[in-house]
Amino acid sequence: MRTTNYLLATQKAIPKDADIISHQLMQRAGMIRKLSSGLYTWLPLGLSVLRKVEKIVREEMDNIGTMETLMPLVQPSNLWEETGRWDKFGPELLRISDRHNRSFVLGPTHEEIITDLVRNEISSYKRLPLSIYQIQTKFRDEIRPRFGVMRSREFVMKDAYSFHLSKSSLRDNYEKMYQAYCKIFDRIGLRYRAVLADSGNIGGSNSHEFHALADSGEDLIAFSNKSEFAANIEKADALLPKTKRKMASESLKMVYLPEVNDVDELAMEKKLSSSSFVKVIFVKASNVVGSNIVALVIRGDHQLNEVKAEKLPEVEFPIHYVDEKEIFELTGASIGAHGPVNLNIPYIVDYSASVISDFVAGANLDNNYYFGINWVRDAKIDRIADIRNVAEGDPSPCGQGKLSLKRGIEIGHIFELGDYYSKAMNANVLDKTGKNRTLEMGSYGIGCTRVVAAAIEQNHDEFGIIWPESIAPFNVAIIPINMHKSSSVQRATEMLYNTLASNNVEVLLDDRKERLGVMINDIELIGIPHILIISERNLKEGIVEYKNRLTGNKEKMQIENVISHFNCISSDKI
Amino acid sequence: MRTTNYLLATQKAIPKDADIISHQLMQRAGMIRKLSSGLYTWLPLGLSVLRKVEKIVREEMDNIGTMETLMPLVQPSNLWEETGRWDKFGPELLRISDRHNRSFVLGPTHEEIITDLVRNEISSYKRLPLSIYQIQTKFRDEIRPRFGVMRSREFVMKDAYSFHLSKSSLRDNYEKMYQAYCKIFDRIGLRYRAVLADSGNIGGSNSHEFHALADSGEDLIAFSNKSEFAANIEKADALLPKTKRKMASESLKMVYLPEVNDVDELAMEKKLSSSSFVKVIFVKASNVVGSNIVALVIRGDHQLNEVKAEKLPEVEFPIHYVDEKEIFELTGASIGAHGPVNLNIPYIVDYSASVISDFVAGANLDNNYYFGINWVRDAKIDRIADIRNVAEGDPSPCGQGKLSLKRGIEIGHIFELGDYYSKAMNANVLDKTGKNRTLEMGSYGIGCTRVVAAAIEQNHDEFGIIWPESIAPFNVAIIPINMHKSSSVQRATEMLYNTLASNNVEVLLDDRKERLGVMINDIELIGIPHILIISERNLKEGIVEYKNRLTGNKEKMQIENVISHFNCISSDKI
Repeated sequence: MRTTNYLLATQKAIPKDADIISHQLMQRAGMIRKLSSGLYTWLPLGLSVLRKVEKIVREEMDNIGTMETLMPLVQPSNLWEETGRWDKFGPELLRISDRHNRSFVLGPTHEEIITDLVRNEISSYKRLPLSIYQIQTKFRDEIRPRFGVMRSREFVMKDAYSFHLSKSSLRDNYEKMYQAYCKIFDRIGLRYRAVLADSGNIGGSNSHEFHALADSGEDLIAFSNKSEFAANIEKADALLPKTKRKMASESLKMVYLPEVNDVDELAMEKKLSSSSFVKVIFVKASNVVGSNIVALVIRGDHQLNEVKAEKLPEVEFPIHYVDEKEIFELTGASIGAHGPVNLNIPYIVDYSASVISDFVAGANLDNNYYFGINWVRDAKIDRIADIRNVAEGDPSPCGQGKLSLKRGIEIGHIFELGDYYSKAMNANVLDKTGKNRTLEMGSYGIGCTRVVAAAIEQNHDEFGIIWPESIAPFNVAIIPINMHKSSSVQRATEMLYNTLASNNVEVLLDDRKERLGVMINDIELIGIPHILIISERNLKEGIVEYKNRLTGNKEKMQIENVISHFNCISSDKI
Repeated sequence: MRTTNYLLATQKAIPKDADIISHQLMQRAGMIRKLSSGLYTWLPLGLSVLRKVEKIVREEMDNIGTMETLMPLVQPSNLWEETGRWDKFGPELLRISDRHNRSFVLGPTHEEIITDLVRNEISSYKRLPLSIYQIQTKFRDEIRPRFGVMRSREFVMKDAYSFHLSKSSLRDNYEKMYQAYCKIFDRIGLRYRAVLADSGNIGGSNSHEFHALADSGEDLIAFSNKSEFAANIEKADALLPKTKRKMASESLKMVYLPEVNDVDELAMEKKLSSSSFVKVIFVKASNVVGSNIVALVIRGDHQLNEVKAEKLPEVEFPIHYVDEKEIFELTGASIGAHGPVNLNIPYIVDYSASVISDFVAGANLDNNYYFGINWVRDAKIDRIADIRNVAEGDPSPCGQGKLSLKRGIEIGHIFELGDYYSKAMNANVLDKTGKNRTLEMGSYGIGCTRVVAAAIEQNHDEFGIIWPESIAPFNVAIIPINMHKSSSVQRATEMLYNTLASNNVEVLLDDRKERLGVMINDIELIGIPHILIISERNLKEGIVEYKNRLTGNKEKMQIENVISHFNCISSDKI
């Protein structure tokens, strides 16, 4: 490809709304253009990277015997009603009506569609297991689309679904998918981890996310320093501390501090260690006798884990915080002034908060605080649970080592759904004995468009993108100096370009009438791994200059060695 | 691929709603499944054909320097308001609202999106011409989706757009696209014709449709028997007859026929030749002084051409028929009882109706008819126009030969749009002299999903589909007889399967425990071009049976010749 025939759309300005580096670079390199909030056009440069990601995904799906299909984006509402997700799914599910006023959704995922297909198509165990995928456009009406294609509304996803007679067959396929995902991300060249995950609104039991590690990631992941354990912080258990509660050594004492409005200010003012006080969070209750609100008590240095909390039987799902006014009416105190002593609302105490002694909390009266609180003596403690995020240094729930936290970008997610959908939709087959059996089901996604952005988050420098070999839009760039003036440069350039191209090396020839600096800047911005610079001076010695985009190393290369050099690179490509 | 690992979903029953053969066969062969009206899932067999069509389209687009992009399906309404199509486009344009109540459409085509991109991206003539395409999901909310994927609501289209400084550059690109379309349809192996077409609601001037010829086609195409002329009947000009009107030989006479309700009944009753009477059609007028209705007068044997009629300045666009009640109130007569004599509504006479003499028509009084009508003497004739469909045997508008009519399926459409969109959206560039110039634009579509159905309409027999080599889901099927009982059959089958597969022949091995008849029926239904049948008896002589799906010819083939036979086929593939 020649740049003069190509929609090279590089730009210097950093777009105003691009707050992470991948979004900035995708815009600046001319990979994408924003059409509207969360809607992007993929320009040729971006699309060629996306297609390479898709190709790798497709090959590994085919390798494990998963079959490609293509399902509609527009899905009838009645299937979503069958599974209950028409009501349960939030407003990310875009509900639309056609000209006959029939209801549809723009598919954010396809569990209902594939389950409907399979229940109609498969009636015997002989056709199982069955594993199907598609690479297709999805739509999720994000409330706040951000980070470019990382959290866009329209995006390309590989979604696979498998159907089984038994849980063990499902487990086998889950394991095959897990391995295929590792191969895919290895081939793409990402630094990633598979981590235990919550199943969210997809449903089911066992689930792993695949995260590309990057500081810009929206997720926090907890790792053990002594084992393979890794989990999304949503899912990582905080263990009940093994240390017993110490005996009370202080007496309970209420202090009036007119200048101090909440426990956080108190901790600052009194230089309390954050683990020596507790805070109280009020949420809507579910199944709690005599109260439609329940209080959650956690240590001052901890953060509430909403996913854990909303799974408790006493807490409404999804979690719903009580507003300030209602709290004041019920307790007579403002947010931040509460504590367990004399609290007139049922409460649940986090494991870690349940083992401290002589601690501090609000007195349920504005600007008043209790010091020297001790459980049992001063406040009952009849309901404890794990409701906080794990923190750096916590013991790993696997029993080995301590946890450390890193940020990750979710690029894949696999689910053992079990019979969640097949039961709701009556997807059954006859087994060997002629008995009707509900199908076991798995679901497996990869965000193809997001993978592209994640690769940039991991591979860039101050000059631009540095593509991994496997998904680079071009392998080699040729930059001729004064090609339009020097016939020897032109001859050598054309010869190299044609020879490389005919050896299946993907080459971009920058044949614009631009200064060397401009060309180098553009080529480095768009991240082509290998750069050849052709000058009249070097040609006199039969030499071209080679620059490696990743290492920045430059070397002189005999022109006749160039082909064999890149033939190797090309065949090395996984 | 082995059938036991494949989602082979053949069925005997013809689906109730499938009224054309391609829809029936796509369903029966397990290529597609209906999700909802006009929404289909593509099963693996169907998708592999679709992907081959897409690949051929992609290669030929790349060959003429068109660059691939991917634009969003969901498009903001404001761009459609800029071009006026938000109001003008009918209810096929599905208008939707997001969670913030902003308006969008599901894209039926992408002129607005690409013009917006180009006006933002391209500011100088130096970047022109620019030609961009995508292969992408489209949505049109058809009022009556039918014929399976032929007229579905969600479908895959290749849409390309080009931008130019001059009309001649646009014309050059139009010609390149025309040639590329021919290559594409040649490679796919379709019997097709490029025909002059109306531009419809896409706008612009010059336009060609590409039609796959098939009796089930929804379009009628007129061909000259003496030249290359071909046009959609919507667009084919009916010439003003060169014959002069004959002198009047009869006098005007009104006849009361109480049993005869309209001119068609009259023609039957009196055995009139259909070319000796005229009929009148009432439509809403536009720019007609003193009347909001205009009458269209055509010969009894002719059909109104709505596209021609609604282009007349006197006729409202889009055409709007006047209802019976309103006609009766205005004229005092029912539909079918009208004629030009004493008609109190302005009328336009079709060319062919304008040259007849001594003709018959309604008397604008129920059950009364005029015989011996002659223009000028009995009815004024001051406005004539071409408002009818051409008919079999009409002179070709090219001046050579006569027209014959055939049915076609529209599989491609190219448009010289000119400045229709770029003007409305202010898409300008600076030319060499620094002057602002409005871009010239072209638009070029291929219905990829429809091409698959059209190929089946052209290639099938009573046993099923017969795929053209280039888009067959598999090239070769191997059917072993009693593979599960005979070790020699099993050995030979596996050897052949592996050897062909490793020679890049796409093979489907039917390894089910099924009777030979069942396997043959399925393989012939799904249309694999080449079939190898392996039996113990033939193997003893080192022979396999080869059957050609198209010709039905069978031959015995030495097993060692099979590979070279299919290697040739494979390399013959365009």
